[in-house]
Amino acid sequence: MGKDTRNIYLTNIPLEEAQKQYFTHFEVNKTFVKTEVIPVMEALDRVTVYPLFAKKSSPSYNAAAMDGVAVIAEKTYGATESNPMQLKLGEGFVFTNTGGCLKDPYDAVIMIEDIVEIDKNTIEIYSAAKPWQHVRPIGEDIVEGEMILSANHKIRPMDIGALLAGQVQSVEVYQQPKVGIIPTGSEIIEVSEELQIGKIIESNSRMFAAMVQQYGGSPNRYSIVKDDYNLIKETICRAAKENDIVIINAGSSAGSEDYTVNVLREIGEVVIHGVATKPGKPVILAIVEGKPVIGIPGYPVSAYFVFEFFLKPLLFKYNRQTLSEGQKIKATLSRRIVSSLKHEEYIRLKLGRVRDKMIATPLERGAGVTMSLVKADGILVVPQQTEGYEAGTEVEVTLLKPQEEIDHTIVSIGSHDLVMDILGNQLHKENPDMFLSSAHVGSMGGIMSMKKGEGHIAPIHLLEESTGEYNVAYVDRYLKGEDMALLKFVKRSQGLMVQKGNPKNIQGIEDLTRKEVQFVNRQRGAGTRILLDYYLKKKDIEASNVNGYDREMTTHMAVAAAVASGSADCGLGVYSAARSMGVDFIPIDWEDYDLLIPQKELNNKEIIKLIEVMKSEDFLTLIEELGGYDTKNIGEVITI
Amino acid sequence: MGKDTRNIYLTNIPLEEAQKQYFTHFEVNKTFVKTEVIPVMEALDRVTVYPLFAKKSSPSYNAAAMDGVAVIAEKTYGATESNPMQLKLGEGFVFTNTGGCLKDPYDAVIMIEDIVEIDKNTIEIYSAAKPWQHVRPIGEDIVEGEMILSANHKIRPMDIGALLAGQVQSVEVYQQPKVGIIPTGSEIIEVSEELQIGKIIESNSRMFAAMVQQYGGSPNRYSIVKDDYNLIKETICRAAKENDIVIINAGSSAGSEDYTVNVLREIGEVVIHGVATKPGKPVILAIVEGKPVIGIPGYPVSAYFVFEFFLKPLLFKYNRQTLSEGQKIKATLSRRIVSSLKHEEYIRLKLGRVRDKMIATPLERGAGVTMSLVKADGILVVPQQTEGYEAGTEVEVTLLKPQEEIDHTIVSIGSHDLVMDILGNQLHKENPDMFLSSAHVGSMGGIMSMKKGEGHIAPIHLLEESTGEYNVAYVDRYLKGEDMALLKFVKRSQGLMVQKGNPKNIQGIEDLTRKEVQFVNRQRGAGTRILLDYYLKKKDIEASNVNGYDREMTTHMAVAAAVASGSADCGLGVYSAARSMGVDFIPIDWEDYDLLIPQKELNNKEIIKLIEVMKSEDFLTLIEELGGYDTKNIGEVITI
Repeated sequence: MGKDTRNIYLTNIPLEEAQKQYFTHFEVNKTFVKTEVIPVMEALDRVTVYPLFAKKSSPSYNAAAMDGVAVIAEKTYGATESNPMQLKLGEGFVFTNTGGCLKDPYDAVIMIEDIVEIDKNTIEIYSAAKPWQHVRPIGEDIVEGEMILSANHKIRPMDIGALLAGQVQSVEVYQQPKVGIIPTGSEIIEVSEELQIGKIIESNSRMFAAMVQQYGGSPNRYSIVKDDYNLIKETICRAAKENDIVIINAGSSAGSEDYTVNVLREIGEVVIHGVATKPGKPVILAIVEGKPVIGIPGYPVSAYFVFEFFLKPLLFKYNRQTLSEGQKIKATLSRRIVSSLKHEEYIRLKLGRVRDKMIATPLERGAGVTMSLVKADGILVVPQQTEGYEAGTEVEVTLLKPQEEIDHTIVSIGSHDLVMDILGNQLHKENPDMFLSSAHVGSMGGIMSMKKGEGHIAPIHLLEESTGEYNVAYVDRYLKGEDMALLKFVKRSQGLMVQKGNPKNIQGIEDLTRKEVQFVNRQRGAGTRILLDYYLKKKDIEASNVNGYDREMTTHMAVAAAVASGSADCGLGVYSAARSMGVDFIPIDWEDYDLLIPQKELNNKEIIKLIEVMKSEDFLTLIEELGGYDTKNIGEVITI
Repeated sequence: MGKDTRNIYLTNIPLEEAQKQYFTHFEVNKTFVKTEVIPVMEALDRVTVYPLFAKKSSPSYNAAAMDGVAVIAEKTYGATESNPMQLKLGEGFVFTNTGGCLKDPYDAVIMIEDIVEIDKNTIEIYSAAKPWQHVRPIGEDIVEGEMILSANHKIRPMDIGALLAGQVQSVEVYQQPKVGIIPTGSEIIEVSEELQIGKIIESNSRMFAAMVQQYGGSPNRYSIVKDDYNLIKETICRAAKENDIVIINAGSSAGSEDYTVNVLREIGEVVIHGVATKPGKPVILAIVEGKPVIGIPGYPVSAYFVFEFFLKPLLFKYNRQTLSEGQKIKATLSRRIVSSLKHEEYIRLKLGRVRDKMIATPLERGAGVTMSLVKADGILVVPQQTEGYEAGTEVEVTLLKPQEEIDHTIVSIGSHDLVMDILGNQLHKENPDMFLSSAHVGSMGGIMSMKKGEGHIAPIHLLEESTGEYNVAYVDRYLKGEDMALLKFVKRSQGLMVQKGNPKNIQGIEDLTRKEVQFVNRQRGAGTRILLDYYLKKKDIEASNVNGYDREMTTHMAVAAAVASGSADCGLGVYSAARSMGVDFIPIDWEDYDLLIPQKELNNKEIIKLIEVMKSEDFLTLIEELGGYDTKNIGEVITI
C-alpha cells in the first residue's frame, strides 16, 4: 500500500458496540499486569494488586482513651457523689494521657474532669469505674491480620493512615499504564516554533497528556511525525513496543495524506474504522503487538471526545477502576437542536439556573471549535435515529463542572462585547464562588431569551430608527407587560474597521458599495447589523450591493480578525476590537450598550454583587484603558 | 505558662460559626497572593491569576475543513447533476486536505466524496459551491485577543489545548499553598522505628500530606516533636515562617501534656479552642505571623474530620476554588442512631442498594476507629440539638464513594469470618466493577437484617440446641413465610483460643470457671456466643461464673488479639483467627457457616457472579490454605 490509497469508506458502528467489540481484545487480567512495590506514603491514587492485612494491632496495647487517671475498676466500687472515695497515686491510680499505656493491674480510666485532686498524691472520685471504661483495648482500631484494603483498591488518604497504623509500609500497586502519544501531520508545528501561514500549532498531544495524567496513566509524547508512510510506520512500531497504549493523532479520516489506517493494517489489525458518533466518527481502533493503538481525528473537539470514548475506559480498566458515569441533571433546552439520524451526537451546552429552572443553551457545534469545549458546562447526547429536540424540551445533561458552580453563575444571553468578558472576570475575582457566563446571540436574541426566561441579563444595543434612541423602544415592543429594567452599562464607539493604513481609502458607509471592497457582516439579530441596516436604509443602499453582506461572524473580534488577516477589507464593529487586532477604525456613532434585566432580578443577591463590581474603581479603570467607551451612566437603573 | 497548666475548658461553638469567625482573618486577596509563571503544558490543575487572551487566531489562515478540492465558488455556479462541470488542476481547483491553507483566489472546498477524477489534471463536479463552504475561516476556533480563560480558573486538559492553540505558552498561576505538618507527642514514633508497648505509630501526618496534595497544596512534614513546651514552640515558630498554613497534630485537647494551646497563646492568637462537633471537638484555631495555625486532635477519625472542616476550605480558598458540597443521596437507616444534643455529629455509614432501596448502616463511632473511615461509604450529619434518628428514617447522606460503586455492592450483614474478606476480595478481583461490603453484627443480627430487607446476604452459624443442627431451624423460626434459601459456604472449626504453650492448661469449657482464667466473649447475637451458651448450659455452668463473660469483642480476630496480648487468657473462636494471631487452639466442634439469602436474590446477576467465585478453583485454594475449613458443600442451595 502506498501514498495514493484513499480510504473514503468508513463504517458507522454505534459507539457502545464499537467499545464492546474493541475492549474484548484487552482482557485486563491478561493484558495489563505490570506491577511495582512502592512505599505506602507515596501510594496516593495508586491501585493495590493484593489485599493488605494489618501486620500489627493498633493500638498494640490497652490504651487510655481519655486524659485522666487509670484505676483498678474493682477497687472503685462503692464510690458515689455522697460517698466519695480517695485513691493514692501509684496504688489506687496513676495519671495518664490519651494514648497512654494501661499496665497491669489498671483496667479502667476516669476522666480528668471527673476527679478532684486533693494533693499531689491523692485524688477523690465520685462514681465507680466499670472495667475497661475509657480504654481503647488492643486492636480496637485495627486488629493484627485484619484486611485493611482489598485488591484493586485505589488508595485514598485515610487508607494511607490505616495501612501505616497497621504497620504496612510498602504496597504492591499496578504500574500506571504508559500511553505513547504520536502527533502526525506535515502541517503541524511545535508550540515553540514560529507560526506561518499553512502551519497549525500542535496542541492536541498536550491535551491528551493532561488527560492521561488525570485518568491515572503516564503520558509519553513523541515528536511530530511528518506525513510519510514509512516514518509513521516506524514510529508506531517503536511506540507499540515502548508503551502499553498508543495514540496516533490525526490522519485517521479518509484524505489523500491519511496513511495511518494503512500502516495499522500492515503492522497490526484494524478492528474498527469509523463509529456512529459526531464528533469522533473517523476513529481507528487497532491492535499492534497485542496492545491498543488508536488513531484519533485531528479536530480538537473530536480528539477530546474520542479520548473520552476509548482511552478513558481503557485507562480505568487497566487501573482496575469502575468508570463513573458523571453527574447528570435535568435541564430545559433554550433552543431547538437538529441532529442527523445517522450519528449519536454530543452537543456542548452552557447551563444556568434562572429563576429555579436549569436552562441549557447549545454552543457552536463545529468539531474545530475548541472554545465550545472550554466554555461548555455540560454535554447532551442526542441518540442515533433521533432528529433532535424542540426548544423547551427537558433533557438530561452530563455535567462538566460542579453543580455549585453552575448554580452560582449569572447567565447573560445577548450581544457580545469585550466589556462583558472583563466584567465576568472581575466578578469572579472579587467573588470566587460566582461566575458570569455569556452566550453570544446578538441583541435581538437577547430580547427573545429574556422573553423565554432563559437568562438573568441580556446585553443589548438596539437603535430605534424613528427616534434615534437606544433599547427602550425595543423592550416596550417585545416585552410588553413585563416588568423590565435597563441597567445602564457603557456607551461605545461603533465604526468601520479597515486594514492598517486604510489601503482602500474607506471613509463611510457609502464606500461599502464599491466593487473592490469586501465587507464582512455580523449575524442576523446582532445590534451592529441593525445599525448597518439603519445606515444602508438612510443612504438608500440595497444590501445586495454590499459585497460580503451575507458573510456572517458572531463577534466583533471575529470581524476584526477577518479584516486584520485581509480576508475582508472592512466590517462594522467597536473600537476596542479594532484596537486589540491592530486595525484602523473610522468612528460612525456612539451607542448605548445596556443590560436588560427583569425588575425582580434586581433584588437577586448575585445581581447586586454584579452591580457593585460594575461600579467599582478597579473595573472602571480596566474599561477606560480599553478606549472607545464612556462609563458615566454605569450602574443606573431605568425601569420600563 | 508552663508544663502544669491544664486546659480542661473548651468552647462549644457551632462549626459554621467557627469557620466564619476564623476564616474572616484570611481574606484571600490579601493573605495569599504568591504566584509563579509556569509553562502551559505543565499547568494542569493549577489556577490562573489573570485572564488569558489568545495571542494568535486559530486557524491563523483560512483552512480547508474537509479533505477535497479547493475551488473558486463563483466559477462553479451552474454545475448540477444533469449538467456536470469539469475543472482543471491549478486553474479551477487544487487538491487540499483537512487543515490545508486556502490561498487566493480559492474560497470554498468541495468534499472528495463529491467529485469524480477524470484524469490527473481534471475533475468533474455535480453541484455549485457556496462561498466559504467547508472552510474554517481564520479565527473560527479562537480569535486573536479573545479571552480563553478567566482569572481564578483551574486549568483542565482542554484549557491547555486551547491556550496552546491560541499561542499562549506560559501562564501565571498561584503557588500551591505550602502546608507545614508537625506531629507531636512523646508516645509516637516514626513508621520505620520498632514498635514497643506504650508507643504508637505516627500515621496522621501521612494522611494529612496526602489530603494536602489532593486538595491542591504542597505538604511539608516536620519530624516528630516530643512533648516539650520549648521544642513545640520553636518548631511552630519556624514552621509559621516556612509555610502558608501550619498543622500541629495532637496536643489539642485538655490533658496534662497538651502544651499546644499555651504555646499558641504565647506566640500568636488563639481564635477558637473547641467546636461543637463530634468527632473533632478539641480543635485549636490560631493565627501566628498572620497565618492559619491549626491544632488537630490525635485520633485518626477526628484528625480526618478537622482537616475536612478547616484545612480543606482554606486550601480551596487559597486556590480560589469553590468548595463543592459533595454528592448527596437519600438513604434509609437500618439502625437507630442516638446522638448528643451538645454536638453536631458525623456518623460514618455503609451503604447498599438492596432491592431498589438505599440502605444506610452506621459503622462504629469511636474517634479512634480508623477502619470506620476506611470502610465508610458515606457520612450522615446529625445536627446539634437533635437526639438522633429512629431506624427506618430516610436521611441525607454525603457520598464518599462514587454511587456506581455502591450500586454494584453486594451487602452482607451478619456474622464475621475471614472467608468473607477473602470472598469479597476475590469477587472484586474477578469483577472489577463489583464489591462486597460486610457489616459485622453477628448471626442473629444477620437474620434480623434479612427480615428488615437491609442486606442481600447474611452469613450465619446458629446451632439449634434441640437437634444439634445449624441454621435451618432459626430461619424457620424467625423468617416464617418468607421464601428464603441457605447458600452453603464452609464448615469451620470452632474452639478455645489460648496463649501460646497454653500456660494456664485450659482443656475445655469447664476450665472457664476457674478463678485465674480471664475469658473474653463475643457480642450478644453472635453465633459464637450462642455456641458458648449452648456448652455452658450443657455443662450446667452459670454465665456469672465465667470471668470476663461480659467483656465483648465483635470479631474473631479481636478475640484472638486479646488473647495474644495477654489481656485475656482464653476466648472462643475459629481456627483461622487463632492461627493468624499465633495463639494455640483447642478444637471444640465443627459448625456450618452459611449465607442466608432470599430466594428471589438467587436470580440476581451479581449473586450469580458471587456463587461462581465461591466455587472457583482460585477461591477454594485460598480457603484451604487458611486451614480449619471444610469446603465440600460450597455453593449448594437449600431452599427453606
